[in-house]
Amino acid sequence: MIERYARPELAALWSDQHRFDLWLRVELAACSAMEADGRVPAGSADAVIARAKGRLSPARILDIERTTRHDVIAFLTHVEELAGEPARWLHLGMTSSDVLDTATALQLCEASDEILTDLDELLAALARRAAEHKLTPMIGRSHGIHAEPTTFGLMLAGLHAEVARARTRVVAARAAIAVGKIAGAVGNYGNLTPAIEAAALGSLGLAPETIATQVVARDRHAELLSALALVGCAVERIALEVRHGQRTEVGELEESFGKGQKGSSAMPHKKNPILSENLTGLARLLRAYAGAGYENVALWHERDISHSSVERVALPDATILCDFMLRRTTALVDGLVVKPEAMLKNLEHTRGLCFSEGVMLALVRTGLPRQKAYELVQKNAMAAHADPAGPAFRARLGADPDITGRLDAASLDACFDLTHHLRHADAMFARAFAVRSATSQPQPQPRSLA
Amino acid sequence: MIERYARPELAALWSDQHRFDLWLRVELAACSAMEADGRVPAGSADAVIARAKGRLSPARILDIERTTRHDVIAFLTHVEELAGEPARWLHLGMTSSDVLDTATALQLCEASDEILTDLDELLAALARRAAEHKLTPMIGRSHGIHAEPTTFGLMLAGLHAEVARARTRVVAARAAIAVGKIAGAVGNYGNLTPAIEAAALGSLGLAPETIATQVVARDRHAELLSALALVGCAVERIALEVRHGQRTEVGELEESFGKGQKGSSAMPHKKNPILSENLTGLARLLRAYAGAGYENVALWHERDISHSSVERVALPDATILCDFMLRRTTALVDGLVVKPEAMLKNLEHTRGLCFSEGVMLALVRTGLPRQKAYELVQKNAMAAHADPAGPAFRARLGADPDITGRLDAASLDACFDLTHHLRHADAMFARAFAVRSATSQPQPQPRSLA
Amino acid sequence: MIERYARPELAALWSDQHRFDLWLRVELAACSAMEADGRVPAGSADAVIARAKGRLSPARILDIERTTRHDVIAFLTHVEELAGEPARWLHLGMTSSDVLDTATALQLCEASDEILTDLDELLAALARRAAEHKLTPMIGRSHGIHAEPTTFGLMLAGLHAEVARARTRVVAARAAIAVGKIAGAVGNYGNLTPAIEAAALGSLGLAPETIATQVVARDRHAELLSALALVGCAVERIALEVRHGQRTEVGELEESFGKGQKGSSAMPHKKNPILSENLTGLARLLRAYAGAGYENVALWHERDISHSSVERVALPDATILCDFMLRRTTALVDGLVVKPEAMLKNLEHTRGLCFSEGVMLALVRTGLPRQKAYELVQKNAMAAHADPAGPAFRARLGADPDITGRLDAASLDACFDLTHHLRHADAMFARAFAVRSATSQPQPQPRSLA
Amino acid sequence: MIERYARPELAALWSDQHRFDLWLRVELAACSAMEADGRVPAGSADAVIARAKGRLSPARILDIERTTRHDVIAFLTHVEELAGEPARWLHLGMTSSDVLDTATALQLCEASDEILTDLDELLAALARRAAEHKLTPMIGRSHGIHAEPTTFGLMLAGLHAEVARARTRVVAARAAIAVGKIAGAVGNYGNLTPAIEAAALGSLGLAPETIATQVVARDRHAELLSALALVGCAVERIALEVRHGQRTEVGELEESFGKGQKGSSAMPHKKNPILSENLTGLARLLRAYAGAGYENVALWHERDISHSSVERVALPDATILCDFMLRRTTALVDGLVVKPEAMLKNLEHTRGLCFSEGVMLALVRTGLPRQKAYELVQKNAMAAHADPAGPAFRARLGADPDITGRLDAASLDACFDLTHHLRHADAMFARAFAVRSATSQPQPQPRSLA
Repeated sequence: MIERYARPELAALWSDQHRFDLWLRVELAACSAMEADGRVPAGSADAVIARAKGRLSPARILDIERTTRHDVIAFLTHVEELAGEPARWLHLGMTSSDVLDTATALQLCEASDEILTDLDELLAALARRAAEHKLTPMIGRSHGIHAEPTTFGLMLAGLHAEVARARTRVVAARAAIAVGKIAGAVGNYGNLTPAIEAAALGSLGLAPETIATQVVARDRHAELLSALALVGCAVERIALEVRHGQRTEVGELEESFGKGQKGSSAMPHKKNPILSENLTGLARLLRAYAGAGYENVALWHERDISHSSVERVALPDATILCDFMLRRTTALVDGLVVKPEAMLKNLEHTRGLCFSEGVMLALVRTGLPRQKAYELVQKNAMAAHADPAGPAFRARLGADPDITGRLDAASLDACFDLTHHLRHADAMFARAFAVRSATSQPQPQPRSLA
Repeated sequence: MIERYARPELAALWSDQHRFDLWLRVELAACSAMEADGRVPAGSADAVIARAKGRLSPARILDIERTTRHDVIAFLTHVEELAGEPARWLHLGMTSSDVLDTATALQLCEASDEILTDLDELLAALARRAAEHKLTPMIGRSHGIHAEPTTFGLMLAGLHAEVARARTRVVAARAAIAVGKIAGAVGNYGNLTPAIEAAALGSLGLAPETIATQVVARDRHAELLSALALVGCAVERIALEVRHGQRTEVGELEESFGKGQKGSSAMPHKKNPILSENLTGLARLLRAYAGAGYENVALWHERDISHSSVERVALPDATILCDFMLRRTTALVDGLVVKPEAMLKNLEHTRGLCFSEGVMLALVRTGLPRQKAYELVQKNAMAAHADPAGPAFRARLGADPDITGRLDAASLDACFDLTHHLRHADAMFARAFAVRSATSQPQPQPRSLA
Repeated sequence: MIERYARPELAALWSDQHRFDLWLRVELAACSAMEADGRVPAGSADAVIARAKGRLSPARILDIERTTRHDVIAFLTHVEELAGEPARWLHLGMTSSDVLDTATALQLCEASDEILTDLDELLAALARRAAEHKLTPMIGRSHGIHAEPTTFGLMLAGLHAEVARARTRVVAARAAIAVGKIAGAVGNYGNLTPAIEAAALGSLGLAPETIATQVVARDRHAELLSALALVGCAVERIALEVRHGQRTEVGELEESFGKGQKGSSAMPHKKNPILSENLTGLARLLRAYAGAGYENVALWHERDISHSSVERVALPDATILCDFMLRRTTALVDGLVVKPEAMLKNLEHTRGLCFSEGVMLALVRTGLPRQKAYELVQKNAMAAHADPAGPAFRARLGADPDITGRLDAASLDACFDLTHHLRHADAMFARAFAVRSATSQPQPQPRSLA
Repeated sequence: MIERYARPELAALWSDQHRFDLWLRVELAACSAMEADGRVPAGSADAVIARAKGRLSPARILDIERTTRHDVIAFLTHVEELAGEPARWLHLGMTSSDVLDTATALQLCEASDEILTDLDELLAALARRAAEHKLTPMIGRSHGIHAEPTTFGLMLAGLHAEVARARTRVVAARAAIAVGKIAGAVGNYGNLTPAIEAAALGSLGLAPETIATQVVARDRHAELLSALALVGCAVERIALEVRHGQRTEVGELEESFGKGQKGSSAMPHKKNPILSENLTGLARLLRAYAGAGYENVALWHERDISHSSVERVALPDATILCDFMLRRTTALVDGLVVKPEAMLKNLEHTRGLCFSEGVMLALVRTGLPRQKAYELVQKNAMAAHADPAGPAFRARLGADPDITGRLDAASLDACFDLTHHLRHADAMFARAFAVRSATSQPQPQPRSLA
């Protein structure tokens, strides 16, 4: 991933150095398990650690790979250069994928844990801003058209619930991906045993693949990429709200605008929702990687290596981007300039039309059939809409004998009561934020990998 | 979905008739809840049931829609035609999406339950055939190249584990989608209450959306489409095994071939794996629908209706196809002609090369450094491979003093023992099928919707 | 495709009846070519025509297919039932794909011709409305924020250019797809000749595949699906403009609203851009089918049949949807309610800020460095933006000595001249509509298929 | 893109340094055009060149961007630092996208030209190997099952035709993307003129956007990404042939295997088609980027910047990968080890079944109805297939009185003549390679950008 969108900590997870370090960690975990099993001389792992740990040179390994055209063999050759004779006991009965897939699982767990932390921070930011605006009235819109009143806090609570669901999927995907494999060339422990695998993976915080082929099954990685795509969709939904809210004609929201920031090289008056637009685009990339992930699942027989090139690109790029997006979104939410007065002004834009349903229901309650009530209200609503300079909706209703014959002025006024629409906000908040902590309980604790 | 790929029971779930029946069921559930709440006269729902239930005419509703250009209003108008005055009490304070989204949730639950049943049948078929071939030896292949021995039963056990994981995701997605909404125009119960919603949805076997907008959040539907795409990937993996196994040169597997079936209009000798190829293609379509599902998540404000056209096509098509694929796959697995003798013949194709790793490890155990052992073995393996008419691998090893100086004939023979590679099959089966029943326990019981 | 989104004429192109009619047409074209070549008795094709043409029964063919599990053999058996002995001379040396792929090419040509006609009608509608509004001023927006003035006609001209490019791609794809194949089981004319193929395909208006395998290459179909996806993107761009224009706060555009139409079951005041939203969703489906098309290209060896199931669904669905979308878009454009007064009002919304660039440039022309000029203007612009009740931008500039020291009142006023921004509209229109007729010239005439 | 898959020349096209150099080139082209127009003092561009050309510091620009949060303004500020007063005349009346989109067009033209060169080299390699093997017999396969004989050269000729079509699309996409824009904030030359734009873009080898918004329309970029995805599909088709051909049981093809190369860390005997598998995976990534490209087309109004983050990643990644893939594919084709003797051996694998169609047609020519002939042949074919140790197909036919009553031994032998299937190879080659040079003629000459 390009530097612009990569937090150094995430990029480091996918560096050559870290990958080779993890390979060594996996080899050593397997070696230790084989020592316990007795097939490898006691102390072999320690001897390798003493001479090789922290001294791996990615440049040297890539150099050797130019001859072998095989990365794990190049790595092992380099370890043998460093550690000498004891290195012979590494990789015994193992195949490259035992190392590669197990190390990839560790990387994906590390990356997922960063993303889960990011998600928690985003959830906290959304919760803060939602609480702040629980009762800030704004117009609810469907189809981009004013519908009925709601509050900005409820909108944020809905986004919070969306992000919480996205988190649940990442938790499930992290569990699905926390699976390694030390089972040999075709996964049936040709020169290994299930017990060695269990011990080695257990020490790394991983479970064994149920039935491996040469590799860990790729639906696990596809599930993670799908979960990240849905995180992207949640971010996109937040971004879309900000973009709409910052439109010139709407003016209810504004991304924070830094001192010295310039909106346009041509137009000095511009303040644009560029963070939100940026996030909208990045969500498309996450979807794209998920599509490639699906195609990676059905490999030939015990494996073909077509998945590898996809994963070299898509796994780092998707996790790095997802982390970047979440942190940017949290900053966006935290810094969001909210304009309650503009929300109120927009709420009044249609001069009361957003209360039309209440009028219709009041008419139904007087005994009018629903469709008839609908038509009566629609007639007045459309007239008010068509003639913005003429009487507003409430005034027209008050002048329509078909209406006033059924509803007196006080009854009509009651239909136009804004607080009526906000009366369940507390109950809804209770539900939204209770649900959150409930779902967060049973999540598997990301294990420390240190 | 075209008739060719639609089981009538699944197609019926998505028929106009069933959809309108479900709409009425949702309206009645809400009406009953409002009766209990006191805002609607007791007996209203029963009165509508008496006059309208089972009498809805899709043709008439579509006819009315031509004028209103609004499907739910057309539906309500029709119900009023049938039920007269009491119908006035339907839809009180509700918005169209309350009906539409709740009914869609019911349809998706019904479809998911069919798919879960299909998955169970496929799992059972895979388990049967796996048990049958637990110890049927075959060559494991990576990169399409012979690797080391395994068994056909282990391969099927791995596919079983893949399908079981796919099932877990469908169970999660079914829970995510079993969510309705009776919360009014912008989701904050403008003229409704959370209690009414809870009662109505509860009677339908659904939970309420945490914080609705005008609609139920669309990440739920995207999760289901993703889960179905991953079911498709699992099916594709099974199909791919069959296609490879039926290749003329491999000849280990054959789809059952019906009496009277013809393989080719030009070539009377052909028997082709057409079911598996068909399934491979259909998996692509499931991936495609998942892609569209992602784009449906970020709607404008409290909703725009762009998701609707996608869902009218993709939800029926994806669920109908998935059901069709699973049933076809089960039949494929059940009818699969397995040829153990061909598997054994192929196992011997490389004249022992598949045992090369064991030889290398035996050499390492004698004290030879790994890379040196690798080269010794590779030299003899490549020579045997390059000269298929010359001495086989075992014979070459027996004639190589670098080898025989370290391994006597008995030690060499031990490296070529097939049973060595099958010795963990029992333990692996225990794990694979235990895991299955463990994961299948906690799954939420699909509620009856009757 | 569901009835709701299928024009009957397009659906008919993909009916069983039409497909079988085309299969017969292809068989007869090949038979005639073989008669001319001498390998088939003269008059065979005529004899079959006399007895079978117009009498094919799809139901009977599907019935036979239940036994043969092979569609083309079932078809040939049925033709033999109808035509008796002369039918023996059909399909001589041919393979099923000779018939299937050639017939699919004919269907895709027919469908493409409909779509090209639709595109022409949409282009005409856009051209009409563009001409009508060539000089209707509106605010140009970037990032949803007011930028500088433009005209609604220029916006439509841009959409026209986009659709024209989409049309160019469909023309290219139609040429790519107008390719059949009568070359036998593996495409090398085992029991046929290139001359027979050329004659048969020529009579159908098709070219022969350069080098066929058993099938016509699938990149051709993928190109068509890509081209349709890009038509969908162009439609989406139009739809998006309407959706934004119809937002309550913007109010510049409105979809035509039928008499009796209802916008919402809950809110009688609503008029929603539902056609545009519907089109937005359908564009997602076209993208999805393109994705499946890419996966269909790389088949095994001379072919596998995995592409077939995808094509049975995606080719009808994509072409039928594309036709539906284009006709709906044309109606949308034709019926679009445009509100020049609202456009003018919005143009004035920022009280002159949209002229900020002109002021900056005028300052630069007085010798001020660009960045200094930018800051001077930005300072006044931000102040006007921050205080909507305070002095407008023009007034603030007139009161800022840093500005007035360089620009007198007349010079400042000149910067706020709306007509300045419209002065190139004629030249741009000339270019846009000239380009259109230029690119439309060289397009291959869709051949009559009658 | 990660280093492993990036040729340095391609990576350099997308470096910060090159991008900023192109930005300056665009600014200078525009400045020169404005000098000619008279609105900028003569010599301004030259003055900037003298002081700034070759001295741009990406690090300094990124540093300034940290304050402005606007990349083009940061760039201009830096140019002003370097060039002083004359820099004031840069960017006059221009908007950032004038620079960005025009520079992106230059980058994409450069990248496309590299890819076109790569395609030419791949075409040449395919042509060479096709000529070499024009008459090398191999079995044609459909569904992975032996069908009828063909030649390896014909297979390569078909791949050549596929790549040639892919090239045609890249040529079209290069023309579509060779479009810049110097038309100001909303594309209507607010403070510019069409003439200035035409002069500036002409000097860069670009055409002007027909009707720009603030940006060049994004369907152009989507078309390029689609074209690259289809290049990927063509590569995938080649790779798939190699992977199948190298399968142990097939053994007809082998990727060249370097001295010192190791196939497996566990199994010293392995030689795997890893290049082809790698290419198969990369094709998935190209499809993924195309999907993101489609979503970039419909921007808000005159533009939103959501496309930008996608393009920062997908445009470099897709072009760099495509270049890498094509060069790797050319090397693969050039180095491919072809084994005619293995092809011949496989051809005989079914012991004559691949000639079944000829027998059936010979029977039809004797007057037997087609379906009857089919059944006679199928009966003997299936028997031969079912009993590999029993009599071969030819022998069974010779012993079947229903056959011998119609075809004598010489007639039967004629049906088994391999050369019969190769007789049109010359004609097909003439067509395949003639078509190639024909389509390559009219392609627009990539203009030099130097």
